[in-house]
Amino acid sequence: MKQAISFITLGVGELSTSRAFYKALGWTESSSSTPDIAFFQAGTVAFALFQRESLAEDAAVASQGNGFPGFTLAHNVDSEEAVVRTLNEAVAAGATLVRPADRVFWGGFRGYFADPDGFLWEVCWNPFVKLDSDGYVQV
Amino acid sequence: MKQAISFITLGVGELSTSRAFYKALGWTESSSSTPDIAFFQAGTVAFALFQRESLAEDAAVASQGNGFPGFTLAHNVDSEEAVVRTLNEAVAAGATLVRPADRVFWGGFRGYFADPDGFLWEVCWNPFVKLDSDGYVQV
Repeated sequence: MKQAISFITLGVGELSTSRAFYKALGWTESSSSTPDIAFFQAGTVAFALFQRESLAEDAAVASQGNGFPGFTLAHNVDSEEAVVRTLNEAVAAGATLVRPADRVFWGGFRGYFADPDGFLWEVCWNPFVKLDSDGYVQV
Repeated sequence: MKQAISFITLGVGELSTSRAFYKALGWTESSSSTPDIAFFQAGTVAFALFQRESLAEDAAVASQGNGFPGFTLAHNVDSEEAVVRTLNEAVAAGATLVRPADRVFWGGFRGYFADPDGFLWEVCWNPFVKLDSDGYVQV
């Protein structure tokens, strides 16, 4: 299997709420979106929002679940100030601030926000990774 | 906030097991990996494996959670045969087949496997998206 992730799909409680949130963050939906699924191109990966029950049904698993979903997404930026500014933007768009920005033992600076479904986004400045102008890292 | 996802991090139960699984899938760890965190470059996104408790602690949330984690990753391929072959490869690497490949109402062909922590991967042939030779889509 090639080392590639084509899509990340979040199963959301209310698609219209999630669509509005990511739009308020400044993201633009792909023209491939339909009323039932929202697509956003993010570099080489496509980010999708789909109703949680529909996603579970597609995977043939039960949709029930609660607590920590066991994964995080991260959005890296190029300075500590940009971490604070981006977290503020997310909160203004309707996110919940989960962890205010602070320094990490390994030398970075980060905070976390939660999207309307509680999915966690880290906003991080990491002085040890190369970050291109679009926000992508090379590890 | 720019439309960029820098990292996807999975919080795993046993890092050595997850490392071995993704390696058996044919993936190569980045030289930035440490004993505590495994990094894999996947196009513009970095894929990371980190102990679940450590990830929850970093996000300042409780680590408890169960059931459907509410998200899926997808790996797109260029034919129906490649879907079946890739699912077989994943099972040979230690994955659980969650949904055998079958046709979807919208015209695609896909199946799902679960990694050692139950994180779901869709392996999909989608005749409607452009797929480059590395496995990346444009939506």
